[in-house]
Amino acid sequence: MKKLFKILIPAILVIIWNSPDSSGQPGRQSFISPEVKEGRNVTFRFLAPNAKEVKLSTQFIKGQQTMTKEDNGVWSITMGPVDPDIYPYCFIVDGIQVADPRNSWIFPNEGFQNSLVEIPAENPQVYSIQNVPHGTVSYRYYYSNELGTRPVLIYTPPGYEEAKNEKYPVFFLLHGTTDTEETWTKVGRANIILDNLIAQGKAKPMIVVMPYGRAFPLISKESGSLRNWDNLQEFQKDFKNYILPFVEKNYRVRTDREGRAVAGFSGGGGTSLYIGLGNPDLFAYVCGYAPGMRANEFDRNNTVPFADPELTNSRLKLFWLGCGKEDGLYGVLQEYLKVLDEKKIKYQTFITTGGHTWMNCKKYLNETAQLLFRD
Amino acid sequence: MKKLFKILIPAILVIIWNSPDSSGQPGRQSFISPEVKEGRNVTFRFLAPNAKEVKLSTQFIKGQQTMTKEDNGVWSITMGPVDPDIYPYCFIVDGIQVADPRNSWIFPNEGFQNSLVEIPAENPQVYSIQNVPHGTVSYRYYYSNELGTRPVLIYTPPGYEEAKNEKYPVFFLLHGTTDTEETWTKVGRANIILDNLIAQGKAKPMIVVMPYGRAFPLISKESGSLRNWDNLQEFQKDFKNYILPFVEKNYRVRTDREGRAVAGFSGGGGTSLYIGLGNPDLFAYVCGYAPGMRANEFDRNNTVPFADPELTNSRLKLFWLGCGKEDGLYGVLQEYLKVLDEKKIKYQTFITTGGHTWMNCKKYLNETAQLLFRD
Repeated sequence: MKKLFKILIPAILVIIWNSPDSSGQPGRQSFISPEVKEGRNVTFRFLAPNAKEVKLSTQFIKGQQTMTKEDNGVWSITMGPVDPDIYPYCFIVDGIQVADPRNSWIFPNEGFQNSLVEIPAENPQVYSIQNVPHGTVSYRYYYSNELGTRPVLIYTPPGYEEAKNEKYPVFFLLHGTTDTEETWTKVGRANIILDNLIAQGKAKPMIVVMPYGRAFPLISKESGSLRNWDNLQEFQKDFKNYILPFVEKNYRVRTDREGRAVAGFSGGGGTSLYIGLGNPDLFAYVCGYAPGMRANEFDRNNTVPFADPELTNSRLKLFWLGCGKEDGLYGVLQEYLKVLDEKKIKYQTFITTGGHTWMNCKKYLNETAQLLFRD
Repeated sequence: MKKLFKILIPAILVIIWNSPDSSGQPGRQSFISPEVKEGRNVTFRFLAPNAKEVKLSTQFIKGQQTMTKEDNGVWSITMGPVDPDIYPYCFIVDGIQVADPRNSWIFPNEGFQNSLVEIPAENPQVYSIQNVPHGTVSYRYYYSNELGTRPVLIYTPPGYEEAKNEKYPVFFLLHGTTDTEETWTKVGRANIILDNLIAQGKAKPMIVVMPYGRAFPLISKESGSLRNWDNLQEFQKDFKNYILPFVEKNYRVRTDREGRAVAGFSGGGGTSLYIGLGNPDLFAYVCGYAPGMRANEFDRNNTVPFADPELTNSRLKLFWLGCGKEDGLYGVLQEYLKVLDEKKIKYQTFITTGGHTWMNCKKYLNETAQLLFRD
């Protein structure tokens, strides 16, 4: 069995294909991971006959959980009841972090690999996949002279194709540092949240644009240091010169500032505030989800809104800041709010429990999507 | 440093965010993997200060390659020159298979985790992302009363949105056993291959439908055994009752049999032959890419084409079978060809070097896409 996981894919596929069919005696060890059970319990399993120690690391409980080895070399642990949500997790196998090879639902990220598990609630949640009309998530490419061919994901709401003359408001949604253009849909369920809110009449049908949110990947030859400021400048250029024109050329979107919103999580929250507040001609709705900021950069990054707070207040239809109390960025957000108060810039906050997680991120999207484009 | 990889995501993000900016002294160990270099060389790196042995397993060379530990705890290996292509790879860390945590390009699969690396050719290949008009890959859901909400990826060619009255031929493309609905785009670059062929005038603009190709996941509670026959039956029902109607309702597609094609790889190749040959009223083009078959199932799975070979020949505009000589399924394909010859059923073959790989799979798609819908 161990050999199966050591050899390459072609061999694996051939072995699987040639396994006995319907014999009741499967040709290879068969187990499920994660296995979500009744009562909000979940069992995780990992095959490692020769490992000395396998632990589970997951965001629904602090610390690493020791797993137990069964006779067949499969390590397992059952946890629960777990609060309904979608959680990242991984195995720590003799000190090495490993995503779950039996689970194709992966957290898209450039710096680590985690798997995802959903613990369903008794009643569907706003992020639950339900039998309601679903929008479309389109994987597109645009071409930048400076940065080459770049990916962007675009959500169009149910009915978009049929409503041939209607123009839709457009919401730009940025991921966190080390995330990718897929993190908002695959971890944040942005499309499903919008599907459900629109089906319930709680959000206006809108187009959601989820670009790759950095000009340069964080982990690249040139960016041993993080170059946040350089990245903000280059990403803003990319946004104005390529992303926005691409969206306006290819989709029926409103082109007035009151038909545009921007939000982002973590590093992307810092970017959304910079781009949103810095371009009041483009955006009337600006949100930061646990935004990544540094106190010594407040002035530099807020030149436009701080220059004329009264004008800023008059132009913004929503300036929204959300964060968890246990988030490492909660402190700097409090400092930022103080500065906003001093400047008399109006905002609204949404303070939750919990930390810097995508569990919270979904809550922020749910909350703000209902506030956008309410003319 | 080791600690960084042991702790959870929120902490990682906060650490990254709080790292010194532009200081030239990054706050954390920064390295790239994979790093593709000039001369078709590539360096792989993996951080594991406490591992005893780290090896590289990749499809461009047989056997596992020993990696070397540097002082900073990063293991590395440089390989090359490597033939230009896209290759799956993973690390074997003290016997445990691990995808590359520094690489967000993952092979979508339900049974293993591999990363992907592209070794670029001097001149762009048919699967290379180029600055040509790109089609759209749409992630959609359809609802089945029997199987619930199911994913399907749909490629629409460049110009589809503008050509408001045109109907397009439609190509159903099935993945291999344990793959997912994303494998054809993320590993097989199906969308990019079509973009390039269409740009060069070598393929007709067409819609490509890539569903989740099994009725039941291979790895599930109920399917300890593989249930291939059950799966064929259920998937065929799913195709006829839900996938095809969904596509015809939501896309401007041709509804004549000469406007439809089906192909699949490995287990999906077996399915494509079963559905394609078994439903001549639906398909005039049928392709198998290293199709998964068993000799003792030839008669059962080919009832329709074997019943009236002459009629079969007269109705099929293309019956195409491709395989690599080192593929574990090459032998059974040869047996199948013998039976087809006995029955006097016409087909064409495309025999390559190499094995049961997605490197070959891209070649098969490139070859067949140019043969489809040539009225």
